[in-house]
Amino acid sequence: MKAQLLTIGDELLIGQTTNTNAAWLGGRLSRLGVRMTRTVTVGDAREAIFRELDRAYEEARLVICTGGLGPTHDDLTRTVIADYFGAPLQTDPDVLERVRQYYDRRNRDVPPSAPALAQRPEGFETLDNPVGAAVGLWHEAPDGRLIVLLPGIPEEMTAIFEASVQPRLEEQSGVGEVRHRTLVTAGIGETALQEKLGDLSDVLGDDVSLAYLPSTSGVRLRLSADARQTTAGARLDTVEAAIRERAGDDIIGTGDVTLEAVLGDALRARDATIASAESATGGLIGHRLTGVSGSSDYYLGSVVAYANSAKKTVLGVDEAAIREHGAVSEAVAVQMAEGVREALGTTVGVSTTGIAGPTGGTPDKPVGTVWVGYADASERHARRHQFVEDRTLNKELFASAALEEARRTLSV
Amino acid sequence: MKAQLLTIGDELLIGQTTNTNAAWLGGRLSRLGVRMTRTVTVGDAREAIFRELDRAYEEARLVICTGGLGPTHDDLTRTVIADYFGAPLQTDPDVLERVRQYYDRRNRDVPPSAPALAQRPEGFETLDNPVGAAVGLWHEAPDGRLIVLLPGIPEEMTAIFEASVQPRLEEQSGVGEVRHRTLVTAGIGETALQEKLGDLSDVLGDDVSLAYLPSTSGVRLRLSADARQTTAGARLDTVEAAIRERAGDDIIGTGDVTLEAVLGDALRARDATIASAESATGGLIGHRLTGVSGSSDYYLGSVVAYANSAKKTVLGVDEAAIREHGAVSEAVAVQMAEGVREALGTTVGVSTTGIAGPTGGTPDKPVGTVWVGYADASERHARRHQFVEDRTLNKELFASAALEEARRTLSV
Repeated sequence: MKAQLLTIGDELLIGQTTNTNAAWLGGRLSRLGVRMTRTVTVGDAREAIFRELDRAYEEARLVICTGGLGPTHDDLTRTVIADYFGAPLQTDPDVLERVRQYYDRRNRDVPPSAPALAQRPEGFETLDNPVGAAVGLWHEAPDGRLIVLLPGIPEEMTAIFEASVQPRLEEQSGVGEVRHRTLVTAGIGETALQEKLGDLSDVLGDDVSLAYLPSTSGVRLRLSADARQTTAGARLDTVEAAIRERAGDDIIGTGDVTLEAVLGDALRARDATIASAESATGGLIGHRLTGVSGSSDYYLGSVVAYANSAKKTVLGVDEAAIREHGAVSEAVAVQMAEGVREALGTTVGVSTTGIAGPTGGTPDKPVGTVWVGYADASERHARRHQFVEDRTLNKELFASAALEEARRTLSV
Repeated sequence: MKAQLLTIGDELLIGQTTNTNAAWLGGRLSRLGVRMTRTVTVGDAREAIFRELDRAYEEARLVICTGGLGPTHDDLTRTVIADYFGAPLQTDPDVLERVRQYYDRRNRDVPPSAPALAQRPEGFETLDNPVGAAVGLWHEAPDGRLIVLLPGIPEEMTAIFEASVQPRLEEQSGVGEVRHRTLVTAGIGETALQEKLGDLSDVLGDDVSLAYLPSTSGVRLRLSADARQTTAGARLDTVEAAIRERAGDDIIGTGDVTLEAVLGDALRARDATIASAESATGGLIGHRLTGVSGSSDYYLGSVVAYANSAKKTVLGVDEAAIREHGAVSEAVAVQMAEGVREALGTTVGVSTTGIAGPTGGTPDKPVGTVWVGYADASERHARRHQFVEDRTLNKELFASAALEEARRTLSV
């Protein structure tokens, strides 16, 4: 099944909102094997919505529109769709009742604009919104073409998709065209990984394709095969096995797995706990570890020692080590990891001390330099990395290096 | 000037990369007054690129394409553009030399695919890439239509845009169609802000429009006026003054200003320093404060006390306070703020203790509950907020509440 996505909203066009809905829906649809061929964003403008709807409906079997379903006069999607299909808008009394209940439960007055939320074009079905007032809409044409309207607010969009859209799509025939499998690596750059994997053309053959997707937490390897071939699963297994044989140590999991979740599982399996001592990352390691629900099982806390005074007083780093080697050094990284382990009483301590930039670089330690430290009961060491020139990227890369240092050391 | 953006890459369609380029370019173009009317994403597919290029070139005076300019066989943009304009690809010897130098400086072998990076369609000018090997391309048609090709890697795209595209656009006539002004608020929700501003229709008139843009760090108010009217600047001034009269305390700045940068400026102006004691935010306050370059002037560090044991040992929170009131309480929030202020020797301490979810909620303290604490030499208090049910959103909202608590208390 081919799909196109139409995201509607001026805020997307002028860059005041990043279009995370497109990435989320793209990921979900591709896991169902749907082939997303185009994503379009237009503003809250009637003519533009109409034109893009027409193009998408022509080019794909499934069209998903997000945004413009709210109750204000900016929200044009409902009326444009009604006009496009020549389907008059009708008030759905059940939906109206649920909208009223939604506001009642929150002890809020029902706004005068609420009835607009209960309108649907004739022939459209409503899709319940588990977390908000605006419902989704679903339409299946006699020729099998599908159109789905979802609110633009990400939490509402994802909730309706998961509760209603995905189950309905799974019942459609011919949904799966492409089968993807993603192998997630950590601790290795794209070039080094390519060298390690070597020439894969014989393994890939004509029917499996491989893409390298680098990010600040590692390179993902995406394999794709034609889902309509009965051999697709076996062929993906063969290619995955070949890749694992060459780069097994670097592969931390498949699908949407994150480095912080894999590290968390490793800690939980060992009944171990962790704390981070952070300088250049400023708390990002703790933020990433606590992004995983249930992380309180193994994560006890962090000390962000941005100033040297904090490294000394809270983490017990030697004045002498800082004077002799500088704050960005192997000795300080190790002492920070040991210090936080002791301060918080954890099994493992990890640390970062580096220069995120844009200022603070020296010829010996240019922007992008980081020492990552590790300490547990029997092991302590630090490793130097050299990353990039951008502050935001460096913070992410430094944090990933520390998480990966702990994961790899624990897995030995 | 109307513009459309064509972003190219399978990874965008299947959701393995979020399209941050679209938001970044949308923001930059809108600040120049360019009216972005459409953003399209297609995969690395010749026919799709050709068709969308044709549509965009028809509908807008400026077309920017990102992605597909690298050296591999997936990178189709260069050849599709050449075909579209009937302009043969030529090797630019100057660019080829610079590509060679790029690899030399990095002590890397010049890859066999490098010459592809030096090809440009006849009649296109190259735009230097200050941070990577792939150059940008610029074409101005006799009728004034512009087409700009940029690499998809965000750091390279933004570097070329800033160095070459923006200056060239500024020299074009008729660039500015829309003039935006954004007022950034903090510490007030959309509904409360709407009530505070009341009916603005008389002030806005027919020529200025107002949009509310909520985010986890606050609501932005975007004013727009027709830049071709000579009165636009004065009218925006008038509307801004009216809004400031009604909601002046809530407005922290204009444009792209962030809460963490405003707080940083306030601290620097008072020669004050800050530290955070974080539980539910897991280090995010420190991460956000250190996202601002120069934050080492006022930010000394954080203690992330995720476990209660860490709250006691590192921050000196009373066992009795936790037993009596629970970890998510006014007493513990205040003690955390005091504790981190003392541990790190700062002027100000802020703290968060709350329930980010999805688990851990109780009837008294449901998911989304947070106590934010503040302490300085003369003031200590805590404030309770009730936010949402989503873990990621709650962490951001809790961190914003703590940053805003410090900003507002300091500004009194």
